[in-house]
Amino acid sequence: MAEDFSYEILEEIAVLSENAKGWRKELNLVSWNGRPAKFDLRDWAPNHEKMGKGTTLSNEEFAALKTALQKM
Amino acid sequence: MAEDFSYEILEEIAVLSENAKGWRKELNLVSWNGRPAKFDLRDWAPNHEKMGKGTTLSNEEFAALKTALQKM
Repeated sequence: MAEDFSYEILEEIAVLSENAKGWRKELNLVSWNGRPAKFDLRDWAPNHEKMGKGTTLSNEEFAALKTALQKM
Repeated sequence: MAEDFSYEILEEIAVLSENAKGWRKELNLVSWNGRPAKFDLRDWAPNHEKMGKGTTLSNEEFAALKTALQKM
């Protein structure tokens, strides 16, 4: 896959885990291709040098997630 | 990518959003390849016929996420 995109991590909210190779699962605020920031839950290599799989959440999706977790 | 894996959605916890084509961003408990269930945040086509990008969370990662959200 061509990596023809840009991203900027605007805020590191939480590190959820770290594995033996130093990859972390993180919750961040990330701007993709200069667009407004979204919440982003993703695996990252040390120092954010590589990104793994993950998913982004809009403000509305993030609020819905928060509500769902509060009920659990 | 070969889809040489199996999955079973054990519990549908929350639907975070739905787009115009009916794809939903969902939080579910999913068992991959018969392994113990993990929390799974992912886009799904209607009736779970196709899966999109997403990320899985262990119990520990899920607890860390919950703690982080409670502080926000």
